[in-house]
Amino acid sequence: MDLELIFLGTAGALPTVDRGTSGILLVRGGDRLLIDCGEGTQRQLMRSAGLSRIDRVFLTHLHGDHYLGLPGLLKTLNLQGRTDPFHIYGPTGLERLFCEAQRVFGRHDYPLILSEVEPGDRVAFDGYAMATAATDHGIPGLAWSLEEELRPGRFHPEVAISLGVEEGPDFRRLQMGQTVRSRTGIEVTPAEVMDAPRPGRKIVVSGDTRPTMAVVALARGAGVLVHDSTFADSEQERAEATHHSTAREAAQVAKMAGVSLLVLTHVSSRHGPRELLQEAREVFPSSYLPRDLDHLVVPLPDKGQPRFVPAARARGSCHPSEPL
Amino acid sequence: MDLELIFLGTAGALPTVDRGTSGILLVRGGDRLLIDCGEGTQRQLMRSAGLSRIDRVFLTHLHGDHYLGLPGLLKTLNLQGRTDPFHIYGPTGLERLFCEAQRVFGRHDYPLILSEVEPGDRVAFDGYAMATAATDHGIPGLAWSLEEELRPGRFHPEVAISLGVEEGPDFRRLQMGQTVRSRTGIEVTPAEVMDAPRPGRKIVVSGDTRPTMAVVALARGAGVLVHDSTFADSEQERAEATHHSTAREAAQVAKMAGVSLLVLTHVSSRHGPRELLQEAREVFPSSYLPRDLDHLVVPLPDKGQPRFVPAARARGSCHPSEPL
Repeated sequence: MDLELIFLGTAGALPTVDRGTSGILLVRGGDRLLIDCGEGTQRQLMRSAGLSRIDRVFLTHLHGDHYLGLPGLLKTLNLQGRTDPFHIYGPTGLERLFCEAQRVFGRHDYPLILSEVEPGDRVAFDGYAMATAATDHGIPGLAWSLEEELRPGRFHPEVAISLGVEEGPDFRRLQMGQTVRSRTGIEVTPAEVMDAPRPGRKIVVSGDTRPTMAVVALARGAGVLVHDSTFADSEQERAEATHHSTAREAAQVAKMAGVSLLVLTHVSSRHGPRELLQEAREVFPSSYLPRDLDHLVVPLPDKGQPRFVPAARARGSCHPSEPL
Repeated sequence: MDLELIFLGTAGALPTVDRGTSGILLVRGGDRLLIDCGEGTQRQLMRSAGLSRIDRVFLTHLHGDHYLGLPGLLKTLNLQGRTDPFHIYGPTGLERLFCEAQRVFGRHDYPLILSEVEPGDRVAFDGYAMATAATDHGIPGLAWSLEEELRPGRFHPEVAISLGVEEGPDFRRLQMGQTVRSRTGIEVTPAEVMDAPRPGRKIVVSGDTRPTMAVVALARGAGVLVHDSTFADSEQERAEATHHSTAREAAQVAKMAGVSLLVLTHVSSRHGPRELLQEAREVFPSSYLPRDLDHLVVPLPDKGQPRFVPAARARGSCHPSEPL
């Protein structure tokens, strides 16, 4: 099952010519999961995965730079004739926001389903769940974790045969988790012929937050952690005052959680990407800072390492996702 | 005094990869006048004239594709430390929109001044006014007309000398509209030594509308008319049902008003720009359809013709602003 992240907007609250406000698309097989939806997200989707299969948005918190793209996106889906339901998951206050600003969010001909989620809740889908943890951003906020279900361990047919299992339907039964009988009448269990279940992939998006142990716990062992990295060391006080993290703090979270790869995002235009990357890599070498529309392909753990695919390889001679 | 239009967003309600929702910047000397502010406008401003001198927005009507860029723009100005007042002019309902959606528009540390304008009102500025007319779009709407004050007629020093006026301060007095006395004591009036006042420039932006005589009257003799051209002939019924104009209808308005140049905008992605241009030019040959971020430079009437400056000349081999 293919899994990739598309970084639609990587700027902080103040967008720039090159970076838009927050939005990340998770593409898993046929599913499209949008995390946050800053102004301009709908056109970034048009430029990458398209709009047609988007049906779920997960908001990390209710600041404008994370949701102001929603009214336009919802309107566009309506103009495109959508009839399928559209789901928005978010922290406490989601329903009140839509109620208070109903004029701006508009009316639609398709069902719009709002779900307020408490930190610690899990929302289950086919083959994976979206788990959550509380952030520390001064308002209710959620870090989101896409967690794939365990995959069955590898099946060893030669062991099954040696135990007297006949090749055929019994092989399939064992792989489905059922116990079978060998030719000599002995019970053979799946555990005897299969390796232990293999973990699925885990992708965590922190949203805006100070470093917090809740996010460390959520991100434990994740393949990818996308973390608030608004400021450089030089703005440590500002990071604390505005409830954001520095790149170095994001790296400390990544290190504590033991993730494989850290993606810095929500970067302030006060700092160059090289400055942020350098400070993060002093703590956690596998830190990266994508450009808008870069993709991050995440293979299964036993199928290789995550790799960035730049939006346009020819755009510049030095891509900040490459090692310094 | 330099005057130019920058087309920030030329799509209809549904943006595309290439065209954003509505926004036009009028740049006149040091003034920056933003007409409409669809989603993404702030970044289009960053890509062209910058944000620093924007202090007035003129809304044509209160549909989302014309104002959803405002919350982000207002927030960005706040983050940039703005303290100067920011003015928003719009049709009836403007104050109610900001009141109802106060949560989305946010709080700012600078004064935000909302002014509801009735069709026919003129808002005066230094050297020009913004005149208005009612549109026909199913909700209250305003077409906006930037109208420069009359410029004094050309002064003829040789005539003044022949009438006995001494070269020096009296020349200046005549040009300022004062009567002076010649060496022989005869009164010499400005009208004797100056041509008739010369008209200033007039730029009209229709906003979304069916063709209407009010806009024809407002645009009478304008140098530039930017008109709703959402649909092609093939969608005439849809144009009527949705209170928009076809490109051909926009051209008919331009022809009736006797404008110099018609700019088609708010174009639906159902139609190619060539189709819309062709239908408009059958009625009004001086019709153009810019790309986003194209500029239109408008010299004084006696200083040449308006000319388009493409955002990026190299972007494509065929620029739709060029004649077919």
